[in-house]
Amino acid sequence: MQRKIEVGILGATGMVGQSFIKFLQGHPWFELTWLGASDRSAGKKYRDAAQWHLGGETPANVADLVVQESKPGNAPKLVFSAMDASVATEIEQAFASAGHAVVSNSKNHRMDPDVPLLIPEINPDHLKLIPLQQAKRGWKGMIVTNPNCTTAVLAMALAPLKPFGITKIVMTSMQAISGAGYPGVPSMDIVANVIPYIGGEEEKVQQEPQKILGSFDGAQVTPLPAKLSAHCNRVPVVDGHTETISVELSAKPSETDLLAAFQNFSGVPQERRLPSAPPHPIIYMSQVNRPQPRKDVERERGMTVFVGRLRRCPVLDYKFVAMGHNTVRGAAGAAVLNAELMVSEGLLD
Amino acid sequence: MQRKIEVGILGATGMVGQSFIKFLQGHPWFELTWLGASDRSAGKKYRDAAQWHLGGETPANVADLVVQESKPGNAPKLVFSAMDASVATEIEQAFASAGHAVVSNSKNHRMDPDVPLLIPEINPDHLKLIPLQQAKRGWKGMIVTNPNCTTAVLAMALAPLKPFGITKIVMTSMQAISGAGYPGVPSMDIVANVIPYIGGEEEKVQQEPQKILGSFDGAQVTPLPAKLSAHCNRVPVVDGHTETISVELSAKPSETDLLAAFQNFSGVPQERRLPSAPPHPIIYMSQVNRPQPRKDVERERGMTVFVGRLRRCPVLDYKFVAMGHNTVRGAAGAAVLNAELMVSEGLLD
Amino acid sequence: MQRKIEVGILGATGMVGQSFIKFLQGHPWFELTWLGASDRSAGKKYRDAAQWHLGGETPANVADLVVQESKPGNAPKLVFSAMDASVATEIEQAFASAGHAVVSNSKNHRMDPDVPLLIPEINPDHLKLIPLQQAKRGWKGMIVTNPNCTTAVLAMALAPLKPFGITKIVMTSMQAISGAGYPGVPSMDIVANVIPYIGGEEEKVQQEPQKILGSFDGAQVTPLPAKLSAHCNRVPVVDGHTETISVELSAKPSETDLLAAFQNFSGVPQERRLPSAPPHPIIYMSQVNRPQPRKDVERERGMTVFVGRLRRCPVLDYKFVAMGHNTVRGAAGAAVLNAELMVSEGLLD
Amino acid sequence: MQRKIEVGILGATGMVGQSFIKFLQGHPWFELTWLGASDRSAGKKYRDAAQWHLGGETPANVADLVVQESKPGNAPKLVFSAMDASVATEIEQAFASAGHAVVSNSKNHRMDPDVPLLIPEINPDHLKLIPLQQAKRGWKGMIVTNPNCTTAVLAMALAPLKPFGITKIVMTSMQAISGAGYPGVPSMDIVANVIPYIGGEEEKVQQEPQKILGSFDGAQVTPLPAKLSAHCNRVPVVDGHTETISVELSAKPSETDLLAAFQNFSGVPQERRLPSAPPHPIIYMSQVNRPQPRKDVERERGMTVFVGRLRRCPVLDYKFVAMGHNTVRGAAGAAVLNAELMVSEGLLD
Repeated sequence: MQRKIEVGILGATGMVGQSFIKFLQGHPWFELTWLGASDRSAGKKYRDAAQWHLGGETPANVADLVVQESKPGNAPKLVFSAMDASVATEIEQAFASAGHAVVSNSKNHRMDPDVPLLIPEINPDHLKLIPLQQAKRGWKGMIVTNPNCTTAVLAMALAPLKPFGITKIVMTSMQAISGAGYPGVPSMDIVANVIPYIGGEEEKVQQEPQKILGSFDGAQVTPLPAKLSAHCNRVPVVDGHTETISVELSAKPSETDLLAAFQNFSGVPQERRLPSAPPHPIIYMSQVNRPQPRKDVERERGMTVFVGRLRRCPVLDYKFVAMGHNTVRGAAGAAVLNAELMVSEGLLD
Repeated sequence: MQRKIEVGILGATGMVGQSFIKFLQGHPWFELTWLGASDRSAGKKYRDAAQWHLGGETPANVADLVVQESKPGNAPKLVFSAMDASVATEIEQAFASAGHAVVSNSKNHRMDPDVPLLIPEINPDHLKLIPLQQAKRGWKGMIVTNPNCTTAVLAMALAPLKPFGITKIVMTSMQAISGAGYPGVPSMDIVANVIPYIGGEEEKVQQEPQKILGSFDGAQVTPLPAKLSAHCNRVPVVDGHTETISVELSAKPSETDLLAAFQNFSGVPQERRLPSAPPHPIIYMSQVNRPQPRKDVERERGMTVFVGRLRRCPVLDYKFVAMGHNTVRGAAGAAVLNAELMVSEGLLD
Repeated sequence: MQRKIEVGILGATGMVGQSFIKFLQGHPWFELTWLGASDRSAGKKYRDAAQWHLGGETPANVADLVVQESKPGNAPKLVFSAMDASVATEIEQAFASAGHAVVSNSKNHRMDPDVPLLIPEINPDHLKLIPLQQAKRGWKGMIVTNPNCTTAVLAMALAPLKPFGITKIVMTSMQAISGAGYPGVPSMDIVANVIPYIGGEEEKVQQEPQKILGSFDGAQVTPLPAKLSAHCNRVPVVDGHTETISVELSAKPSETDLLAAFQNFSGVPQERRLPSAPPHPIIYMSQVNRPQPRKDVERERGMTVFVGRLRRCPVLDYKFVAMGHNTVRGAAGAAVLNAELMVSEGLLD
Repeated sequence: MQRKIEVGILGATGMVGQSFIKFLQGHPWFELTWLGASDRSAGKKYRDAAQWHLGGETPANVADLVVQESKPGNAPKLVFSAMDASVATEIEQAFASAGHAVVSNSKNHRMDPDVPLLIPEINPDHLKLIPLQQAKRGWKGMIVTNPNCTTAVLAMALAPLKPFGITKIVMTSMQAISGAGYPGVPSMDIVANVIPYIGGEEEKVQQEPQKILGSFDGAQVTPLPAKLSAHCNRVPVVDGHTETISVELSAKPSETDLLAAFQNFSGVPQERRLPSAPPHPIIYMSQVNRPQPRKDVERERGMTVFVGRLRRCPVLDYKFVAMGHNTVRGAAGAAVLNAELMVSEGLLD
C-alpha cells in the first residue's frame, strides 16, 4: 500500500475539530499527525488539552499527540480548518500563503469570489477557481471551503432538481444541538423546547446554496438566480438537521420526474469511488414519516442526505423533507470529501 | 351572583376532555355537572373511569361525578365535545337534534357549509350560520366548532394581516406531543427526534384557515382566496405549537404597518370582556429568539398567541414565528371562548 | 393594611436571583425594592443587566430597578442572598456586620456552628443560635441559611420519620437542570442522557440533613447521629429533584405508622399561617407511579414535598420516593419562608 | 468456512425481536432463517408484518422472510425467544419438548430451579442444570434464560466483587425507554420527566442476581445469600440503564482491591473468544462523570458494562455507578452470547 498523506487539523480541540478526529479514524488515504489549537492548548498532550465531547473516549491515536500552535511551520501540507470564525481569516490565509492546502469548515472565506464553496457531488468544477485564487493572492497554497451545515443538507437536496429550473425556495430547519458546538446551547434553553432563532444562520443559508449551485464560466461563479427564504430553528435533537422545503421549478416536472431525479442523483465522488463518498448521496425514503434524525442520521456514515414526503405544494410547486448529519455531511465529512476530490484532481501533489 | 350555566363534556375521559375539565375549573359562568364517555366508562366515577394525564391530580369537583352514556337524555343544554372523530358525527348530531348546543373540538363538522368554524376574535359573525343550520337540518339545537390546534395558532397570527390582502402562506409547524392525546406518540418515536409527518394534519391546516378568514354574506361563507401550504412536524415539546410563517400580502404594507397590526389586534371577546378572552389575543415579542413554547405557553392562561421575528421574506413578502397553546387556544379554551360568545349573543337562552 | 417590609436580593441577576424575584411577586409582607449584583451589572437597569431565563418576561416591577453594587450602604435591612459561592463569604459577612439580616441560599455559611441551617417546619428553634452568633461575631445583623436543594427535599421527607429514630439513609437523586443555574449544564451533555455526578453535591447532602435534623441544647446544634450516603445524578428534567430513599429506623415502626407520619406532618409555619407555608408541607401520593417532577412540581406553589411508594426495604427498613421543587422549596421559597419565620419571631423588628 | 448454524426467533416482530435481528446481522456462527410470531403476523413477509422501530430500515436479509406460526414444526433447532410473558410459558415448553434449544429473554422460566439463568462470564457452570432439566421434564430440548435487563447490568457489576463476600446491595436504576418495548412508554409520561416506578421490575431485580451469583453443587443452585434492595425508575434516555449501587462486602477490601477486581474481570467467553464476547466485559472509567448512557452505550457493540465513580459509602462499604446496554447486554446480545457458550459446550450438537 502507498504511504498515507499526512494531515493536520486547525482548531482541533473544539467540537468540529473532534468531529474531524472521529471521521478521520481509519481513513485509507489520510493519516492525522498534527493538531493545532490556541496558544492556551499548545504544548499539551491532546488528552489534557481537550475534554472529549463525542461518544466514548479520546481516540488512542491522538490522545498523546502534542497540540501545536496554529502556525504554518511544521504542519503537513494538507490541513483541515475547524477554527472559530473569530480567528480563522488570518490563520487560514497565513497557512495558504505558506503553501498549505487549507480545507476549511469555517465560514470566513466561503463567499470570497475566488474561493470554492465545494460539495463534490454538485460543483466539482468550482475547484478550477484555485489557479485564479493562487494567481490573484500570490499563494502557493489554497483555501477550499465547505458550506454551513444547514446549507449542506439543503444544497444536496436541491441539486437533483437543478435541471428543472429552481426559481424559489422556502425552507424551515429544525437543527440539532451539536451544530452549536460545546458548551453551545444551555440545556435550560432547549430541553422540551424550540428556539426559533440561530444567530447568523439564515443569512448564510440564504446565500450559500446559490453559489454552490451556480455556474463557473472559467473566470467566476455566477450564482443560481433563485430566491431563497430560510427559517432556522433549534430543536432538542442531538445530531441531524431536518428541513422542510418548498420549491418552485420553471420546467414544471411531474412528481415521477422528481422522484427519479432524487433516486438517480450521483456525482464525481461516486464515479471515482472516493473513500468518503456514500454509494448514494441521496436516499429517498418512501415511508410516510421519514426521514427522522434519531433513526436515520447514523446511516451511511452520516454522508448521505435523506429525502422523503415529496408532494405538491399549494403555493410553490413541490414540497418535501430532507435530513442530513450536520457534523458529518455538514462539517467534518464534507471537508474530508473535499480533500479527497482535491487529491483525485492532483491538487495536492 | 347569577346562577351558573350547567355544562357537560362529551368524551370526558380523553386528553382533550381532561383539558376541558382543567380549563373550566373556577369558570365564572359555567358549572361542569355532566361527563359523558363511552359505554365502557359509563356508570363509573370519573376517578375510576379515567387516569388523569395532566399535572397534579383529578380535580376534586369531578372526581366523584358518575360518567354518563353519550346520549342526550339528561345532559345540560350546553355540551362541549371532545369526542374522537370516529364517533363524533352521529353523537354530535343526535345532541344537536335533541336541542343541545354542541360546542365541538372534533373535526367532523368543521367544514360543513352550515356549521360555524369559529374563532371569536376573527369571525364572530359566522355565528349567523346557526339559524340557517337549524332551518336546514330541522334542529332545535346547534353545532359550533373550533379549528384544529395548528390552524388555531395560524389563523390567529394571520387575522391581523387580513386587511393587507393575504394571497399566499407557507407554514411549517413544530407541534407538541400533547396534541396527539394519550397514549399518543410513543416515546421511542419522539425522544431526541423530529417526526416530519402528522396524519391528516396538513389537509386540515390547508383548508380551515381560509374558512375562518372567509366572509359571510348572509347566506354562506366564502373562503379567503389564499393559497396555503403546510409542513407539519412533531417535536419533543410538551405543550405549544410553534409555526414559521411566510406570507404574501397584496397591499405590500411596511413592516411598521404589520407590527402595528399585530400589536393592536383585538376583537369582540375583548370588547365584551368575555371571561376567557385574554387582554391581548396576540402579543408581539421583540426579543430575537422568542416566542418559545416552554417559556411562553403558560402565559395568559394559554389563550394568547405569541408572535415574533417579523422580517422580510425573500420569496413571499414577510415572514415571522407564531406560537400558541395547542390544548388551550387550540382546543378546550377555544371551545369555551366560543361558548362564551354564544352566551353573549343570546344563543343559549 | 400595614406597610410592607422592604427587601433586597444579593446576586439578583443569576438564576437563583431570578427565582427570588419570581417567588416574591405579590408577596403580602415583603416588597422587593433593591437588587444587588456584580460591579459589571451595577448602575444598569435590571432589564439591561440580566437576561430573563424563567418563563415569560422580566416582571414589570423589577425591570426598571437600577442594579446596585453589593455593598451594605443603602440596602434594606432584610436581604436575600443568591450569590455565587466564590464571593458570598465576605459580602454576606459585610452585610451582617452592618446590621442586615442576610437570609442566604449560598452554601458558604451553612455549616458554621453558629449559623442556623433552617427549614421552618423542622428546626425553627435553631433560630436561637442568632444571639450567640451576634455575640460571638460582634454583629448587629445576622446570617441565616437554607440548605442545598437536594438536601431540602431529603430533609423534609425524613423529618416526619425522626421520631422513629433514623440511623441510616441511602439516597439517590435524579436532579433537574435548573439546579445548575444558567448557562449551567450544556445541552450536549444532558439531552437524552444521565450524568452520574454533580460537583460538590454529595458532600453537601451527606452532612447538611444531620445538622437540620439535629438538636439545639441552648448552646449548640448536635447533629443527628445518622449515617447518610448520597448518589447524585443529573437527568433531563427542567424543575424538580426526585430522590429514592432507603432508611433504617431504630423504633421499627409499622408501614401504617410511617404513612400517618407523612400525612400528619406539619409545623410552625402552618400553625402561624406564614404566607409561603403550604397547607401540607408533605403530600403523600397513593398512585403507584408518583410523584413525578413534570406533573407535580408546580403544585402548591412549589413549597410542598411529595412522597410516594412507601414500602419495605430488604436491606434497611423502608424505602420510598420524594420529589420537590429545587428552585422553590430548595432555594428561593425556602429562604423566603425562613424570613417569614424570622419576622414572626420578631427578629427583624 | 464451516456451515453456519441456522437459528430462529420466537416473537420476532416486537422490539426485543428486532434487537435480535439487528444483533445477529453478520454473525459468524449463526444464520437467521426463521421468524415466528403471533397468528396475526404469520404468513406475511416480515416487512409487512412488522414496523421497524430501530434505526434505519428493516435489514434486507429478513425483510422478505415469511413469518411463521410459533409452533415447533419447521423451526431450526436453536431458537431465541423474545416472546411476551403472557404467551412464553407454553410456547417455550412446547419447543423444548420438541427438541429445540430455547434461549430465552422472557422472564417466565428464569426462576425455575432447573433452568439456568445464565451470564456466561459469571455462571457458565449453571449450564450443568440442563441434563437435570431434561431428565426431570422428559425433554430432548432445553430452556436457557438470560436475566432482566436491569439485573444484567447489576449482576455484571457485582460479579467482580463476589470474592469479597457481597452481603448487602442497595441499587437505584435510571432506565432507558427502549426497555419498555413499543409502543411502550407514552411520550406524555416521560418527556422531561422521571417515572419512579416500573411494573414488576423491582421484584425481578431483587431475586435474579442472587441466583446468577449463586453456587451450583451438581444438583441445584444455591442463591447468593445477599440482601438486595432495588429502586427502579424510568428516565428519558433512549438506550442504556444507569445504576447507582451501594454494597456491603464482608472481606472489607481496599479501594485498590476493588478497582483491580473490576479491571481484571474476565471469564469463559473471553477465554474461548466467543464471537459476541467483548474483550473486557467490564470497563472501569476513571473520569469523574462517567459512564453516561448516551455517550457510552454503543461502545463495544453494547456488550460491555461500564463502571465508574468507585468510592466509600457512609452506610454500606462502597458505592459506584454502572451502565450497560439494556437491549444488547440486557436482552438480545445476552441471549446470543448464551447460545455461543452452549455451542462451545457441545450442547447444540
